[in-house]
Amino acid sequence: KKSYNIVVLPGDGIGPEVVKQAVRVLEAINTSSPDVELKLSSYDFGGCAIDATGEPLPPATLAACQSADAILMGSVGGPKWSVGKVRPEQGLLALRKTLGLYANIRPASFASPSLVESSPLKPDIVRGTDITVVRELIGGLYFGDRKELGAEPKPDTAWDTMIYSEEEVKRITRVAAKIALASNPPLNIHSVDKANVLASSRLWRKIVTETIETEFPQLKLDHQLVDSAAMLIVYNPRKLNGVIVTENMFGDILSDETSVLVGSLGLLPSASLAGAPNLDLKPGEKPPPGLYEPIHGSAPDIAGQGIANPIGTILSASMLLRYSLGLEKYAKAVDEAVKKVLDDKSAGGFGMRTKDLGGESTTSAIGDKVLEVLKTLL
Amino acid sequence: KKSYNIVVLPGDGIGPEVVKQAVRVLEAINTSSPDVELKLSSYDFGGCAIDATGEPLPPATLAACQSADAILMGSVGGPKWSVGKVRPEQGLLALRKTLGLYANIRPASFASPSLVESSPLKPDIVRGTDITVVRELIGGLYFGDRKELGAEPKPDTAWDTMIYSEEEVKRITRVAAKIALASNPPLNIHSVDKANVLASSRLWRKIVTETIETEFPQLKLDHQLVDSAAMLIVYNPRKLNGVIVTENMFGDILSDETSVLVGSLGLLPSASLAGAPNLDLKPGEKPPPGLYEPIHGSAPDIAGQGIANPIGTILSASMLLRYSLGLEKYAKAVDEAVKKVLDDKSAGGFGMRTKDLGGESTTSAIGDKVLEVLKTLL
Ligand SMILES: CC(C)[C@H](C(=O)O)[C@@H](O)C(=O)O
Ligand SMILES: CC(C)[C@H](C(=O)O)[C@@H](O)C(=O)O
Repeated sequence: KKSYNIVVLPGDGIGPEVVKQAVRVLEAINTSSPDVELKLSSYDFGGCAIDATGEPLPPATLAACQSADAILMGSVGGPKWSVGKVRPEQGLLALRKTLGLYANIRPASFASPSLVESSPLKPDIVRGTDITVVRELIGGLYFGDRKELGAEPKPDTAWDTMIYSEEEVKRITRVAAKIALASNPPLNIHSVDKANVLASSRLWRKIVTETIETEFPQLKLDHQLVDSAAMLIVYNPRKLNGVIVTENMFGDILSDETSVLVGSLGLLPSASLAGAPNLDLKPGEKPPPGLYEPIHGSAPDIAGQGIANPIGTILSASMLLRYSLGLEKYAKAVDEAVKKVLDDKSAGGFGMRTKDLGGESTTSAIGDKVLEVLKTLL
Repeated sequence: KKSYNIVVLPGDGIGPEVVKQAVRVLEAINTSSPDVELKLSSYDFGGCAIDATGEPLPPATLAACQSADAILMGSVGGPKWSVGKVRPEQGLLALRKTLGLYANIRPASFASPSLVESSPLKPDIVRGTDITVVRELIGGLYFGDRKELGAEPKPDTAWDTMIYSEEEVKRITRVAAKIALASNPPLNIHSVDKANVLASSRLWRKIVTETIETEFPQLKLDHQLVDSAAMLIVYNPRKLNGVIVTENMFGDILSDETSVLVGSLGLLPSASLAGAPNLDLKPGEKPPPGLYEPIHGSAPDIAGQGIANPIGTILSASMLLRYSLGLEKYAKAVDEAVKKVLDDKSAGGFGMRTKDLGGESTTSAIGDKVLEVLKTLL
């Protein structure tokens, strides 16, 4: 049996509730699979870690993450910690940086066609939207030099630096290209920048262009200015179908904007990797650990009520199986089970909906049904 | 007669076509008004100025703008100039900076209720959206220090600086507050930043909060992170009704995103000012000139066909009358005429639509009808 070490970070708010359902999914695979063993262990991270140790990312948690094969996270943060000097998101930024997770991958498509009606956009505009945002995650404004208000020189100013090197742009372009090539036919690549104003965007555009032209000449590439991409996402999202590749801050904004098109935030998974997804992992290879989490926050307003949507976390577990462990067949089974739980009854599904989608299914009821269907597929 | 000096910059692409209709509107006011004289004169700006003089903002154009009471612009740019070393948008950035136009004001609401059906969003979600974005226009990443790829030190990197001073944030906050106070009841203010990551955003949040609390305690203020604002604009835009105030780059992205909610880009005006709008201008006061332009681009694909929507430019002329000349009564008449041209026939209007809104009315047909209605109102 091939054994994998998975660190689980339930986090704060609804985090533990949604992670619980994804853990059940991984355990079901563990039990029924003859060839793999998934070893799960939980650690404190975020607000709960601040309460327990004074730090959002305690050394024990970081050490466990560093030696893991993959990490499954819930969500961190909440009003309790938002005013303190030590804040949960500092732990998240430190974890990303320390593990070198430079590629944030956020697919947004309809997990079931029946969800088109849950979009804020008109069905004819949004139907068929299928965009994967590949966001550079440890460069740019987030990690450049900065100066706070009050510090010398010029204490009445504050600044941040949007900085990129050729190498940083090259490697994220390669991740986007590999994701594009994993589809047949390959997906189009849309690079987003503000090259008509910013020096870092001119570097971005030049390196993306060169990297695709020399290393991936079979791919189609276009360039969008960030302001016009923000418009297109709303009025003609299918025009951006394929892979959007962009720098950290633009990716933060555009991936959130994109995510609300396809039904509910509660449905969407994400992966943060230190390289390209291991779609073609060889037996025995151990890649650096990836971090998988739903894109929603800790939603303190509904925490503890058992009504949060666990699907974004369950699909994050599926991405983990696919991208970090190379277990495509199990990932596919999870995706299929989720689709069936969401599909309309007329399409042979169960049409279940949590509250965020206007339904009444509980977190655990969704988990139960996904497991029930999954077991028939394993 | 009080006389005003208005500089007209038709620009490139559809610019001259849409400006022509707005100029007709201003001339009609000039002719029929007993108390004001509007003197219009046109200058080269943008791509056409590059062709004529080698520069997008020739000295004669700049001088005319500096001594004007207000400036009406069409749009600049086009493929012809996008690869050159001298580009049209450099002229626009230089004009903003030289005139000190730090406040970009972009209202997005339905010019007629009948346009709700033209939104990419579902009617129930978007109906009643009424958001004015107040974007800081001459600070932040656009004008901070930068280093290009290839320059020393570290020639393989490029960077830009997002920098703000207390004073820059104070003055744009005051503009937002004055716009909020011009409505009865006053509008809510939503300040957008990324204070959980950026030093410049922490300065932004602190100064906006202090300025509103000490100078405008009657106003309601909330803070949104830029990523979550980008989501809200799509899934619950009315939650941001009122005034969004934000820094230059975030404002570029969010104002474009907001603009596509309310029907067509072709409908929306904007103002760029060196201070608060002169809603309470005293006779004889001469404020620094403001720049008024539709938010759409030069649309080279449809230039010369006579099908561009002139309404964004006509409403920009209305903002000019209101904000720079203090001529509220004429501004109101223009707004009313536009509304009537767009309103459904069942609502007593003419239901006219240019191609961008799925109709067949030409640019000049819209202009004709606006003038016809306007004359009955003057
Ligand atoms: C919590 C915050 C620092 C983080 C970010 O901006 O990267 C979040 O918005 C995200 O997108 O994961
Ligand atoms: C042309 C470009 C430099 C400009 C900007 O980014 O400010 C435009 O997008 C705008 O919003 O007026």
